[in-house]
Amino acid sequence: MATDSRLPASAASPGKEPRTARGRETLRKLLDAAAKEFGDLGFHAASISGITRRAGTALGSFYTYFDSKEAIFSALVRDMSQAVAETVAAEVPPGSRGIAMESEALAAFLRFARTHKEIYRIIDEAEFADPDSYRAHYDGTARRIEARLDKAQDLGLVTPGDNEVRAWALMGANVFLGMRFGVWDDSRPVEDITAAVTALLEGGIARR
Amino acid sequence: MATDSRLPASAASPGKEPRTARGRETLRKLLDAAAKEFGDLGFHAASISGITRRAGTALGSFYTYFDSKEAIFSALVRDMSQAVAETVAAEVPPGSRGIAMESEALAAFLRFARTHKEIYRIIDEAEFADPDSYRAHYDGTARRIEARLDKAQDLGLVTPGDNEVRAWALMGANVFLGMRFGVWDDSRPVEDITAAVTALLEGGIARR
Repeated sequence: MATDSRLPASAASPGKEPRTARGRETLRKLLDAAAKEFGDLGFHAASISGITRRAGTALGSFYTYFDSKEAIFSALVRDMSQAVAETVAAEVPPGSRGIAMESEALAAFLRFARTHKEIYRIIDEAEFADPDSYRAHYDGTARRIEARLDKAQDLGLVTPGDNEVRAWALMGANVFLGMRFGVWDDSRPVEDITAAVTALLEGGIARR
Repeated sequence: MATDSRLPASAASPGKEPRTARGRETLRKLLDAAAKEFGDLGFHAASISGITRRAGTALGSFYTYFDSKEAIFSALVRDMSQAVAETVAAEVPPGSRGIAMESEALAAFLRFARTHKEIYRIIDEAEFADPDSYRAHYDGTARRIEARLDKAQDLGLVTPGDNEVRAWALMGANVFLGMRFGVWDDSRPVEDITAAVTALLEGGIARR
């Protein structure tokens, strides 16, 4: 997922947080290897030895940071959730607001999905392997969209309305567009997808 | 899922289709029991003996209709996919068109999700346990929405546009609204949810 040593808060199991830069690097390697292992095999078939083999680390170093396969899976879901949020935030041009901002966020998400196709397999499997992390991911994402819409409403860019429902609708649209036009088939230009969604958000689809 | 004896096409494993009304009833019982077993336990923990126990049938009758746990899971995903489509189609008032029709379809889907909360657990797990059925479910649903939008466009109710992208966006919105306001928390009136989506589809959210 992330290629730097950035880690989500509480990546390791409780009491096992790395204290050195080298420890953080090893933890990062284990999370990147876990993304491949869980992405390729799914939660049930994935194994700790598969993760350490991919990471090129000793089996013992896994247990330095994690208690179990469940623990690294949860850490990975939080890691991916944070990576999507940070990537989208970083790619939205500063100063973009309202619907233009939502379009930029969708474009950034579609590009992310195209280059990290394992994300759906992992986040979606959390619904079963780690329901709390699954829910935290979508609750958190919806809250960020809602906050952006609230701000756009305050700025007079968006009509007053139920921004919670709007946020869940928009998030669902983005997730399914990312699956269909990002992961399953990435042959259509990102701009085609964002143009249709932008027009829908701008003026709806009713003919007047 | 369905409480009548209606069955999806090719519900049983190849060569095992029931030939009598009684056989169809047993098959229906097995599918209803499978919905509970997979819904409660998930694919991996679910067992054929758990399904026949819930159905009140002998273990042998399972193999009369299905080859394996995988086979009945696939049949169940097709069954649920068909049940959602038929329920929504039956609840949309005849003659409703365009955006009004999409609102009615969302309302019907939200009511369905509230009374069949196991549907997400089962359809979503198909992404892992039976990827072909998962994809067929969403491809089929998106195509139905796209066809409705094409028709609404022909009738001059909807502006010309990319109805494939619109359909995937609308389906994603519906799926996530059903999860958030149907399965996770059903305390808000269905009308609140549909009103926000109808307004969005009608005129967008941009302030002019």
